[in-house]
Amino acid sequence: MIRAVYPGSFDPLHNGHLDVIKRSARIFDQLTVAVLHNRQKPTTLFDIEERLAILREAIDGLPNVEAAMFEGLLVEFCRQSGARVIVRGLRAISDYEAELQVAHLNRQMNPAVETLFVMTATRWSFVSSTRIKEIAQLGANVDKLVPKASLDRLEARFGPPRV
Amino acid sequence: MIRAVYPGSFDPLHNGHLDVIKRSARIFDQLTVAVLHNRQKPTTLFDIEERLAILREAIDGLPNVEAAMFEGLLVEFCRQSGARVIVRGLRAISDYEAELQVAHLNRQMNPAVETLFVMTATRWSFVSSTRIKEIAQLGANVDKLVPKASLDRLEARFGPPRV
Amino acid sequence: MIRAVYPGSFDPLHNGHLDVIKRSARIFDQLTVAVLHNRQKPTTLFDIEERLAILREAIDGLPNVEAAMFEGLLVEFCRQSGARVIVRGLRAISDYEAELQVAHLNRQMNPAVETLFVMTATRWSFVSSTRIKEIAQLGANVDKLVPKASLDRLEARFGPPRV
Amino acid sequence: MIRAVYPGSFDPLHNGHLDVIKRSARIFDQLTVAVLHNRQKPTTLFDIEERLAILREAIDGLPNVEAAMFEGLLVEFCRQSGARVIVRGLRAISDYEAELQVAHLNRQMNPAVETLFVMTATRWSFVSSTRIKEIAQLGANVDKLVPKASLDRLEARFGPPRV
Amino acid sequence: MIRAVYPGSFDPLHNGHLDVIKRSARIFDQLTVAVLHNRQKPTTLFDIEERLAILREAIDGLPNVEAAMFEGLLVEFCRQSGARVIVRGLRAISDYEAELQVAHLNRQMNPAVETLFVMTATRWSFVSSTRIKEIAQLGANVDKLVPKASLDRLEARFGPPRV
Amino acid sequence: MIRAVYPGSFDPLHNGHLDVIKRSARIFDQLTVAVLHNRQKPTTLFDIEERLAILREAIDGLPNVEAAMFEGLLVEFCRQSGARVIVRGLRAISDYEAELQVAHLNRQMNPAVETLFVMTATRWSFVSSTRIKEIAQLGANVDKLVPKASLDRLEARFGPPRV
Repeated sequence: MIRAVYPGSFDPLHNGHLDVIKRSARIFDQLTVAVLHNRQKPTTLFDIEERLAILREAIDGLPNVEAAMFEGLLVEFCRQSGARVIVRGLRAISDYEAELQVAHLNRQMNPAVETLFVMTATRWSFVSSTRIKEIAQLGANVDKLVPKASLDRLEARFGPPRV
Repeated sequence: MIRAVYPGSFDPLHNGHLDVIKRSARIFDQLTVAVLHNRQKPTTLFDIEERLAILREAIDGLPNVEAAMFEGLLVEFCRQSGARVIVRGLRAISDYEAELQVAHLNRQMNPAVETLFVMTATRWSFVSSTRIKEIAQLGANVDKLVPKASLDRLEARFGPPRV
Repeated sequence: MIRAVYPGSFDPLHNGHLDVIKRSARIFDQLTVAVLHNRQKPTTLFDIEERLAILREAIDGLPNVEAAMFEGLLVEFCRQSGARVIVRGLRAISDYEAELQVAHLNRQMNPAVETLFVMTATRWSFVSSTRIKEIAQLGANVDKLVPKASLDRLEARFGPPRV
Repeated sequence: MIRAVYPGSFDPLHNGHLDVIKRSARIFDQLTVAVLHNRQKPTTLFDIEERLAILREAIDGLPNVEAAMFEGLLVEFCRQSGARVIVRGLRAISDYEAELQVAHLNRQMNPAVETLFVMTATRWSFVSSTRIKEIAQLGANVDKLVPKASLDRLEARFGPPRV
Repeated sequence: MIRAVYPGSFDPLHNGHLDVIKRSARIFDQLTVAVLHNRQKPTTLFDIEERLAILREAIDGLPNVEAAMFEGLLVEFCRQSGARVIVRGLRAISDYEAELQVAHLNRQMNPAVETLFVMTATRWSFVSSTRIKEIAQLGANVDKLVPKASLDRLEARFGPPRV
Repeated sequence: MIRAVYPGSFDPLHNGHLDVIKRSARIFDQLTVAVLHNRQKPTTLFDIEERLAILREAIDGLPNVEAAMFEGLLVEFCRQSGARVIVRGLRAISDYEAELQVAHLNRQMNPAVETLFVMTATRWSFVSSTRIKEIAQLGANVDKLVPKASLDRLEARFGPPRV
């Protein structure tokens, strides 16, 4: 049985993330979506409870997927939860380099855990949480880019789309 | 008649920007250089009035070019000003990826506006406003890199070149 | 009036090309799709007449678009046909570098002609004529990737899809 | 049970390939290393039998790994052998783009098969079959770069290292 | 006699830096490792004295290498110290672009100083000071990634490795 | 004393090459420009004698630069000629990756020889021998891109510029 972990900030979850989750759930026996809680730099728009709540709404109906919070080193979280695989989505070249750097470092810290990269569908290749927050704040309608759970929270923050 | 918008922070305008403006003015019937005014993150060195003033000095003599301020979503500004084309300059690879991400997002929000990319001349390929501010503050002479309008304001801030 | 040229081998035309053609036709007054005829290296799958015929079928219904053959230097073709703009589609990073190299060289040869880059829609970002020929020859169905005019000729060459 | 396919030319197998094979064998239940046989372009240094023989020597001792030959479309080979996963090793950026293009195309042809990318260990990041053949032919000692099975065949072709 | 300068923040020095230092010391007659002191943005983990102290411990035994502090423009520091060469290590693509931008700017400011790039060994290609601080703070053991001088200071800050 | 080797095909020498030669000649005590002679794949436009003759004309007046022919492994040529440094020019990203791959392989074969990268001036960043041959054959005037020695031979082959 292969248990995989898909880590991230998910601030908030968008359709590109959800695409990676669904693909991974079809490959691996068990998938844990691990939401990073950074107590020292609490710079996210949504706090850890909101981000977990959005995620739980969105993965409802995927039986082998669960949401969890993690702090500290990802490889340590993998060791504790018995995961042998870290899943990451690849979009652009700049992602790729940062991802490889982190993955090599994780391998150096724990060679028993392997990082596997999944391609994001081309239609979500331009979507990122940072951009979504930016344009939602300016009044854009992002209902094509995020699941309903994220949309509701974004509207609660920034009001309904004005443009 | 094609009306194009060239958006940016222009903090301050440099010769690479001016090169894109001149090329675009030769192609399109009307060009609006749109200076982003971000009320929420006022992190520019020069405020919106100064940046507009520099720009107006520099485009003096280009009859089909005008300067404007914009806030909010760029595609909304295009809609209001009747522009069908967004112009962006391309330099390095890293630019390219970020630019494509934004351009795809803009297309998703408003398919009627198309983003076109112009090549910056190779001699300005290493010039950026960030680097110029950095070295001007350290006393470097940047008179080869910026138009006189920017040079005057940089000297007013940081004093004459010391090196 | 802006006359633009969209050059390429189009061996054969695919949906990514067609996407660039349609976008460009909305921006520019007149668009010439210029098919490269290389007498010295006749390595295309389809000869120049077939490639032009496919193109003419596919652009039927676009009133301001025409197909033409060119040999020799592109900038010379632009000069002769009165085009001030070369249009190129951008997909991947590797494209980008080769395109910039060619564009800078063209500018060096004829500064009056400007190269503008259009983004290919993300859904065609992985499509290239080379790959399409490769998989069509192996029996793949490419009807989602090329217009009917290309599909007919590919089937005439390689037979109906077998997979 | 997850059955994965690791496709390639393996002309010849090198230590970077072997690294990907060993990592994948630890993750997936069954791994088929699929050697491409291109009847139409027989441009490999070693023929299909030699490449398979090298591979079989090198994977001897890995119980869940087998070697196979494939022709035609990779996704068709996956369908026939019941594999849901294609494994590819990632090294450089240029790899990455070509790999993504192929992977998106494969997904378009068969959405049931997912491509996963494994990182090659940094120490093999500069190794490629093309370079190895090049320098072995010029007399270089490549015993640090390839397994013994490949080394024997390279020496049979090019003689013992002369430098 | 060629005097070279290797500039950086070295916050803290890691094995990739040390690799570049040792390679450069074998090529050039005299190497000055120049530690940037930024009075206006004191955002480093270790102050300038600590960073210089770590460096001096680590280069002890390399007779033609010395440590120095610099403020202001690097090309001005080169001019004052009589250095004709700036040495920089190359790792990833993203490095490469930023490095080239800075190097072209430095050349524009002082054409007499040339920037030369040295390849970091592949085994350190994923190591950066930023990542090291990040994981050391989370309790990771970084003794394979930094020299003893850095390790001691990191432990003094963050305590012994907990994972 | 540092002896450096600048290897290449130089088919033919262009202004970007000459720029690297002049920069390197100012840094190193002795520079050997080493022209690759590939007996097995004689695919160059100019044969080895022509390429050497062009080079010798162009470096006339640079006292510490000499031209030489090499066959076989570059690191072996370096060993025989007592060179400790290989110089390579960097232009685009795609260069960079191929260059790094070769440089790491050379280091693996001979750790005593170090590869150093010099930046090509931005104004030559889009120039390559391949493109120059291509456009010269089509009748373009390349007198701004190559030294007179190359121009003469290109005209002898392709006739005077026709465009």
